[in-house]
Amino acid sequence: MTTSTATLPITDRTRVGRLADQQIVDRAALYALLDGQILAHVALVVEGNPLIIPLAFARDGDSVLIHGSTGGGLLRLAAAGSGLGLSVTALDGLVYARSLFDSSMNYRSVVIYGVPTVVPPKEKERALLVLSERLMPGRSEEVRPMTRRELAATIVLCIPLTEVSMKTRSGAPSEAVDDGENHAVWAGVVPVVTGWGAPSASPLTAHGTEVPASVRRH
Amino acid sequence: MTTSTATLPITDRTRVGRLADQQIVDRAALYALLDGQILAHVALVVEGNPLIIPLAFARDGDSVLIHGSTGGGLLRLAAAGSGLGLSVTALDGLVYARSLFDSSMNYRSVVIYGVPTVVPPKEKERALLVLSERLMPGRSEEVRPMTRRELAATIVLCIPLTEVSMKTRSGAPSEAVDDGENHAVWAGVVPVVTGWGAPSASPLTAHGTEVPASVRRH
Repeated sequence: MTTSTATLPITDRTRVGRLADQQIVDRAALYALLDGQILAHVALVVEGNPLIIPLAFARDGDSVLIHGSTGGGLLRLAAAGSGLGLSVTALDGLVYARSLFDSSMNYRSVVIYGVPTVVPPKEKERALLVLSERLMPGRSEEVRPMTRRELAATIVLCIPLTEVSMKTRSGAPSEAVDDGENHAVWAGVVPVVTGWGAPSASPLTAHGTEVPASVRRH
Repeated sequence: MTTSTATLPITDRTRVGRLADQQIVDRAALYALLDGQILAHVALVVEGNPLIIPLAFARDGDSVLIHGSTGGGLLRLAAAGSGLGLSVTALDGLVYARSLFDSSMNYRSVVIYGVPTVVPPKEKERALLVLSERLMPGRSEEVRPMTRRELAATIVLCIPLTEVSMKTRSGAPSEAVDDGENHAVWAGVVPVVTGWGAPSASPLTAHGTEVPASVRRH
């Protein structure tokens, strides 16, 4: 077990080449990004070819957790001890410069590289509750406990936050030294806003059932 | 040049294994997903290891375009003729079943596999305008044209929409046959809503400059 430090170590793979000033080495910023997102993209190599899949994830201390069916490809990957790359990206805004070339996007992005370990049976329920708490906070208190069969059908993988590359862009557009821009043109940022819509009850829900706390909090 | 058909061909790599009923083979649904998103994650294999990067993208007919600096890793990748996987995912909602196991997410997701080709110099400006039009519709009319230097500094890659795997989940939660659920509990969907916030002008913008049509349309 490595001790985490406030800054992220930079390795050959996580060192940002271009736009190195956009590299973030602050662990608190990393946690804030991960804790605000639920969707990751995972890349792996299968028979020499790239494979990419979108997945829900959750941070658990200094690791991230992903889960899936024991019948899915994740299990085979984990059993093979393959390395993977996991990326989480928040798109924060469109950046309108006064040229297309200098226009950009504001974003926060992290890529985590590592070899996942399978969470052992004894720790699996806790790991799944961490995932549940991140994806649907409070929901585990409202529904029945997981069954033994459900636990057996689910695999949870853990990837340590050791080899991590975080990059962000924020704020106003920047421009190259004046090279023909029309100074009468507006420049600025249009933020992306993500939120939750009104919950819709399913046919499983009896008429008059109260919307629970886990849903009202959205 | 292949002729596109209304349905997407299924290859060994694009055939969905688990939850095969969630596989979509309708080209119109694919286009609708791609045209509504601007962020992709690209996976490649470098020296046997997975690499993953977030990028803006745009559909151009039966291809997708990505672009970057000639100083970045994309150029080396393209020169090597490496295959890549490009994933675009829209998260549409959280699906609250009456067990954690049956809870899920509503989403639309596509993975495109292929070997990118470099868009040749003569077609590069048109390709960049396609990207610009998708990311910031109307903006190219408001700013000065691209310069020769800017074109030379940018590489555009084209990936055909031939090997494509699309998967979606929508609608209410589904549940396994009754296995202990509390029927008094609410079940349903909380939609994810994405939109645009109020534009903020940058210090580059003279006081009183009108917000242009490309920004007002958000």
